Amino acid sequence: MSITPTAAILVIGNEILSGRTHDTNVKYIAERLKNAGIQLLEVRIIPDNEDMIIDTVNTLRQRYVYVFTTGGIGATHDDITAASIAKAFDRPLIEHEGALAALIAHYQERLNDNRRRMAMMPANCGYIANPVSGAWGFYVENVYCLAGMPSVMQAMFNEVLPTLKGGVPFISQTITCDLLEGDIAHALAAIQTNHPCIDIGSYPFYRNPLDIGVSFVVQGQDNVDVLAAADAIRQMVVTFGGTFLNETLA
Amino acid sequence: MSITPTAAILVIGNEILSGRTHDTNVKYIAERLKNAGIQLLEVRIIPDNEDMIIDTVNTLRQRYVYVFTTGGIGATHDDITAASIAKAFDRPLIEHEGALAALIAHYQERLNDNRRRMAMMPANCGYIANPVSGAWGFYVENVYCLAGMPSVMQAMFNEVLPTLKGGVPFISQTITCDLLEGDIAHALAAIQTNHPCIDIGSYPFYRNPLDIGVSFVVQGQDNVDVLAAADAIRQMVVTFGGTFLNETLA
Repeated sequence: MSITPTAAILVIGNEILSGRTHDTNVKYIAERLKNAGIQLLEVRIIPDNEDMIIDTVNTLRQRYVYVFTTGGIGATHDDITAASIAKAFDRPLIEHEGALAALIAHYQERLNDNRRRMAMMPANCGYIANPVSGAWGFYVENVYCLAGMPSVMQAMFNEVLPTLKGGVPFISQTITCDLLEGDIAHALAAIQTNHPCIDIGSYPFYRNPLDIGVSFVVQGQDNVDVLAAADAIRQMVVTFGGTFLNETLA
Repeated sequence: MSITPTAAILVIGNEILSGRTHDTNVKYIAERLKNAGIQLLEVRIIPDNEDMIIDTVNTLRQRYVYVFTTGGIGATHDDITAASIAKAFDRPLIEHEGALAALIAHYQERLNDNRRRMAMMPANCGYIANPVSGAWGFYVENVYCLAGMPSVMQAMFNEVLPTLKGGVPFISQTITCDLLEGDIAHALAAIQTNHPCIDIGSYPFYRNPLDIGVSFVVQGQDNVDVLAAADAIRQMVVTFGGTFLNETLA
């Protein structure tokens, strides 16, 4: 059996913690890691605070195979990710010629000291190309530092993903019906017991008194086992007199 | 100067880490804590895994004044929050008469062993009423365990919030314009330096080549200082020849 690499995401950004911005990067990365056979085991969201970034990065990078950070790599005073990562790895923060060349090519005569600051990265880091704005991301060992702006983050993540060692992709099946969790929990638990390598989640929804039900999500790395567990759940729904519904994001 | 209470949110749920479900609970809680003068300093998202729940709860509850968990308190096999919290606090998991009475009142003849399991909570916990489905949440010391379903989570959080000791509310102003971060970063940094008690965030957006700009978010607990910093930013936008735009969720 092959080993499944693990991952964590570190979202760096006051704007998420203040409730102003609704993070969309976690879902984007999570879906693609799953398809690459990499198991996302933790997400942390922390402020633009140097000590917290250093502590958290040093914890996560020892615990997981891959760590992805988002946010804090722009041109303004609140962009402190590069300097914090350099400190976490005890490396100097230096101007990188390659990153500077990319900034010059993109900004040309609009390159100034503010923008030039985006070429400051930890010594001996690797680069992550940014096809959107010319300001590169970077990685140090297993920590990949991506932009916070979704369009840029996505472009950077798609540069990184093909370079990672993945595992067997996770596949999933979702079954949604109008039954209530409390009526089928024991039967569902028995199916979980029969498929110990598969993760079965149960997600009730209650949108109004006439639109109540549950989605079952069956996920695993063995296609045959996933399909067998999903079939067992479908049979359970029939046995309990349920009606299948279109999937809902409960 | 009054002390600002701190908080963390612990999202318990494989469905967020798999990318299936887009969490909305963090934003809901974050906005309301800010208005109550409670500073949200960290969010963690972890799987339905007992060891991780115990470890994480025990870390967060010692580090922050309030901890809110979401998810894992339903009737199915994957709902392990109550048992895990009991272990984190080294308390037995017992059936609570009050919680059972609420389940009986709500489910009546439909109460079965699956649903009755939702009355199992750590010994000597407090209750959080659930006006939606009759399955109560609970709290132990400073850890408040809420449902994962947004409608239920919101109802529970609104039960809890008035019981918390808050601080001076955080207020914020957002200024959005068509300038580029790299052109104003030095001027913005000077404004931040002049207002050290205020947090100024800069959030660029790039939706298409004709729709580029930045939102500045000024946040703090001193109304006069927040307004003064916001005015300074508006003046900066004018000085740099920018045009004000409606706020965007960058």
